[in-house]
Amino acid sequence: MTTVAILGPGLIGGSLGMALLRAGGCRVLAAARTWESAAAAVRAGAAHEAAPLERAAGEADVVVLCMPLGAVVEVVAEVRRRARPHAVVTDVAGLKAPVHAAAEAAGPASAAFIGGHPMAGRERSGLENARADLFRGATWVLTAREPARAAGTPAGRRLEALVRAAGAAPLWATPEAHDAAAAVASHVPQALATAHMLAFAEGARERPLARILAAGGLRDTTRLAESPAGIWVDVLLGNAAQVCEGLERVIAELAALRDRIARGDAAALTAAFEAAAAARRQLAAEKGWDGA
Amino acid sequence: MTTVAILGPGLIGGSLGMALLRAGGCRVLAAARTWESAAAAVRAGAAHEAAPLERAAGEADVVVLCMPLGAVVEVVAEVRRRARPHAVVTDVAGLKAPVHAAAEAAGPASAAFIGGHPMAGRERSGLENARADLFRGATWVLTAREPARAAGTPAGRRLEALVRAAGAAPLWATPEAHDAAAAVASHVPQALATAHMLAFAEGARERPLARILAAGGLRDTTRLAESPAGIWVDVLLGNAAQVCEGLERVIAELAALRDRIARGDAAALTAAFEAAAAARRQLAAEKGWDGA
Repeated sequence: MTTVAILGPGLIGGSLGMALLRAGGCRVLAAARTWESAAAAVRAGAAHEAAPLERAAGEADVVVLCMPLGAVVEVVAEVRRRARPHAVVTDVAGLKAPVHAAAEAAGPASAAFIGGHPMAGRERSGLENARADLFRGATWVLTAREPARAAGTPAGRRLEALVRAAGAAPLWATPEAHDAAAAVASHVPQALATAHMLAFAEGARERPLARILAAGGLRDTTRLAESPAGIWVDVLLGNAAQVCEGLERVIAELAALRDRIARGDAAALTAAFEAAAAARRQLAAEKGWDGA
Repeated sequence: MTTVAILGPGLIGGSLGMALLRAGGCRVLAAARTWESAAAAVRAGAAHEAAPLERAAGEADVVVLCMPLGAVVEVVAEVRRRARPHAVVTDVAGLKAPVHAAAEAAGPASAAFIGGHPMAGRERSGLENARADLFRGATWVLTAREPARAAGTPAGRRLEALVRAAGAAPLWATPEAHDAAAAVASHVPQALATAHMLAFAEGARERPLARILAAGGLRDTTRLAESPAGIWVDVLLGNAAQVCEGLERVIAELAALRDRIARGDAAALTAAFEAAAAARRQLAAEKGWDGA
């Protein structure tokens, strides 16, 4: 019977715990900064037992750090040192290079560390938004300096089983490859939604009717703008070069559209729309996104 | 018994016809460029009868032009002249000033014209994507030079009844007020999704892993990029000044975020995220959008 310790049972940790309890076959301990938060995880069906952080980290076979990036970087080395030698420590933060750098400070005699990033989430955080099916069908990236080697270790196999029990599909990558891809797939969309929401709020101040006309398109393109600063600021700053490069690409495309609109160039605008629609259709087909 | 003619039974016209047939109380004629398209509308449950365009326009009490903006501008004056004198002609295009300008060329002795724009849609067009509940709960803007006066006319009251029968809520505005608000609520989000998709496709060329990591955030922020060029190019070009101003606001916010990230300014980045989240939460509360 594997013991899993979830340190920080919020949206991600809580959803993971719920999925594991539903799947069965392991014992789940929840630890949090306050005892009340850990006890709430038990009441929500996200853990079997609340435990102090030290005990949870020291008893588990798998320790999952479900905290924002900054907190993970702070505690990961210490958790590796406290964990049982055969245990594996992982995390769920959206950026992996800084976590690996921090984890490596623990020294090679400590418990194994493998990074993790489930490609699923919601813009509203906290245990109250957690749900057992959050990871269903999602890709869950597992990161290691040498992914092929790590995947074959007992620690790697144990994490793969955990990810599958949560309903997700494991995918191995280096921290650097993850961070470069996540900039484009996740960090830039987040920054874009935030910038869009700020621009909308400003534009709507002079045109209150815009708030009434706002419908599904605006709803979807700005949904991520509700994401908590506490999770995102560290991720964007920690991936600054890649994120800035991605934002430059969006700014360049927006400026090109603006120029085509300003000079009334219907042919160039049509070409841009058709290229974007073809790219979106191809991606949607790859991902199994339907048109709804 | 009111007779409604739907000229162009695609996504919007087809959905309107389905909603009206479900609501009952009127006779719906469908006319299209090809007889086959009009007959398909009858088979899909979006009309009682297919009719040639001239007969549909000449028999109906309400004529709804469900074509892209360019086609509406081309035919609206002629349709007003052919319609019965007591009839009302309307449309569903996303930009209203050019439609009013074109409609006014018909002269005051023609059937009444009131513009329309249902704030609902899908990124995939065509009758095959139509559905009876597309407009449920949506705002349907009705436009006139003097909205308060038009709302009290028999034509205005008949259109309000049609909009309500479709499940939507009528809202009166001038064409100019609509177009300024729609730039911010609809046209800019569309251009943004298109630019974002192009930037993603470019960034992912060097980072194929990004396509695998793409999840709900990217799915939602790029959904509109599948929208057809044939509908959008005329709308964006017809509202160029307002759209360019809106795009400038987004570019400025993106550049500000990029600068804060590049110089590692956590406090300023946090402030931007918190302002955007507060604005999104307020808008979501106003609109009744849940957090799912």
